[in-house]
Amino acid sequence: MAGATKRLTIDGRFSMRRGAYLESPSMAYETWGELNAAKDNAILIFSGLSPSAHAASSVEDPSAGWWEDMIGTGLPIDSKRFFVISVNSLGSCLGSTGPASINPENGKVYRLDFPVLTLEDVADAAHAVVESLGIDQLHTVVGCSMGGMSGLAYCVQHPQSVCAFVSVSSTTRAEPFSIAVRSLQRELIRSDPKWRDGNYDAEDPPLVGQRLARKLGMISYRSAEEWVQRFGRERSTSTLASPGDRFQIEFSVESYLENSAQKFSGGFDPNCYLYLSHASDLFDFAEHGGSLQAAFKRLELERALVIGVRSDILFPVHQQRDLASGLREVCPDTTLVELDCSKGHDSFLVDMDAFRPVICDFFR
Amino acid sequence: MAGATKRLTIDGRFSMRRGAYLESPSMAYETWGELNAAKDNAILIFSGLSPSAHAASSVEDPSAGWWEDMIGTGLPIDSKRFFVISVNSLGSCLGSTGPASINPENGKVYRLDFPVLTLEDVADAAHAVVESLGIDQLHTVVGCSMGGMSGLAYCVQHPQSVCAFVSVSSTTRAEPFSIAVRSLQRELIRSDPKWRDGNYDAEDPPLVGQRLARKLGMISYRSAEEWVQRFGRERSTSTLASPGDRFQIEFSVESYLENSAQKFSGGFDPNCYLYLSHASDLFDFAEHGGSLQAAFKRLELERALVIGVRSDILFPVHQQRDLASGLREVCPDTTLVELDCSKGHDSFLVDMDAFRPVICDFFR
Repeated sequence: MAGATKRLTIDGRFSMRRGAYLESPSMAYETWGELNAAKDNAILIFSGLSPSAHAASSVEDPSAGWWEDMIGTGLPIDSKRFFVISVNSLGSCLGSTGPASINPENGKVYRLDFPVLTLEDVADAAHAVVESLGIDQLHTVVGCSMGGMSGLAYCVQHPQSVCAFVSVSSTTRAEPFSIAVRSLQRELIRSDPKWRDGNYDAEDPPLVGQRLARKLGMISYRSAEEWVQRFGRERSTSTLASPGDRFQIEFSVESYLENSAQKFSGGFDPNCYLYLSHASDLFDFAEHGGSLQAAFKRLELERALVIGVRSDILFPVHQQRDLASGLREVCPDTTLVELDCSKGHDSFLVDMDAFRPVICDFFR
Repeated sequence: MAGATKRLTIDGRFSMRRGAYLESPSMAYETWGELNAAKDNAILIFSGLSPSAHAASSVEDPSAGWWEDMIGTGLPIDSKRFFVISVNSLGSCLGSTGPASINPENGKVYRLDFPVLTLEDVADAAHAVVESLGIDQLHTVVGCSMGGMSGLAYCVQHPQSVCAFVSVSSTTRAEPFSIAVRSLQRELIRSDPKWRDGNYDAEDPPLVGQRLARKLGMISYRSAEEWVQRFGRERSTSTLASPGDRFQIEFSVESYLENSAQKFSGGFDPNCYLYLSHASDLFDFAEHGGSLQAAFKRLELERALVIGVRSDILFPVHQQRDLASGLREVCPDTTLVELDCSKGHDSFLVDMDAFRPVICDFFR
């Protein structure tokens, strides 16, 4: 674990929303800036499914973070003004307790004995971190992609401890297209014989299934429009192809997917991926009160910002509009920004010039 | 093979566009109606990737065909007026010669020894059928999905033998999003250990890979909008789930995909699927002359119709517009119809009430 990572052990039994508990789970997090005396300048950031807590570089860990251009001195989430906290989601394999962690009750890796994970659990575990830092009320909760749903869960479960909420390319609950994509991604991993019902050999994980799942992910994270501009029908010059293979890589878009898949698939525990992906499908904000309207009424936000991207097919822009409408009912100071980025869902990671001014305005 | 299926053996060496040849390949086809004395009432139909030649029922084969509501007495493609020919594509496993056929030169199943297949080969093999029926000039070539590209290949390779062309949810060449989807579908089949580099056991084919590829297919054939209406976040009551499975089917959209995949995957030869899918990626109308414009100039059409669907993500509507614009340059009597169907690419198979009037108008 890199030098910037802090760790909290949540003592005792941590109850999970769908039943069962975790014994004294750990949370990995990083912080930037200083908590002020009034303790009212803290921002909590929830990431998408796969990143670690390392959202930005720091003296302790100078490597670039997943939102490097957003967090830091003089950046939109300005660490000179704010105390910024980024958590690794509960259920992940990047520092926080998840299916790849050892169950302290029996000394074995949880694997599929890990209880069903929900984004409400992710939110509550992050809340424990916030409490441990002596913060009663957050200035803002920011969540990207899956993290936007975790953030919404945080706001509805701890309404008095959040002043403002920023949702980046997220939603109140997944639509069936996104569920279908994620369900198939999970099945690709589970269909790899090396997955062995979750009992894969750590030295020989289901890399084929993970690689295929990542390719499907990329198809849903980017946009057709971007790829027309970027690749068209350009042929690949890659050396990834096996000569003589009838169906070898031929088009640039194929080698792009292959490169992306090879980079990702070794770096994430397959069971953790399955749990977090499943949690994304399960989340339904309407469960908090019986309807979306009732759920929104539980919030006590002063300000909210919803950002979406027109080319996003995974969290489509009509879902951003619905989220903003719901928030506005209970929090009139809600802003909706629809960005015309072409890079699909991933725009919040790769089209920073479009996102920075919006986040900057919000925190000005 | 059903009673309505006719068969043509194309004697001698059939040269393939990308090299090599097939020795005396067979073509399966069906016909409806009668060729008139002037031999000017013949319509040739190219299907999408997976259907057989059985496009509609007949006395010889009363089972419903893949375009049952479109072809027949009193239907838009009226078999009282027209002599309708539907071919099973070269490379398929449903009657025509393909990778699952026996190579007469060595008595072995071709498998991956089958030469690279292109849609130009599919078109030329269909042209042999048309010639064998004594037809010099077709009234119209109609092609759906992949079949639209086969039809375009037919029109450009045999310009004087086609009067009119109808493209249904097709294009001049695939964009990278569609290539990515199909490339991944192929990889899902090839990643199934039972595929064995194409040498799978006929009794134990790579059904898992085929099932997964079909699910990805369904995600691209339908539309997010349709699924919101149809499934929302409804839970499945299916018995497909294995109890106790942590990641069992939970949402209706998941059981829909599972049902669809189970229905399809046993019915199509995996190698044939790979070849036809690959041919769809390879096709580029611009190869006929060096540019799209040059290719369009080779056509000698009197009339054309391009139909597309706004919710289609595989052959998106802007591609239909481009195709219609290109055709109009050389064939002023070109009509573009953009349908507002919600069922995505598959609309031409499942939303017949929208398609019938358009086809009917064209042939009136």
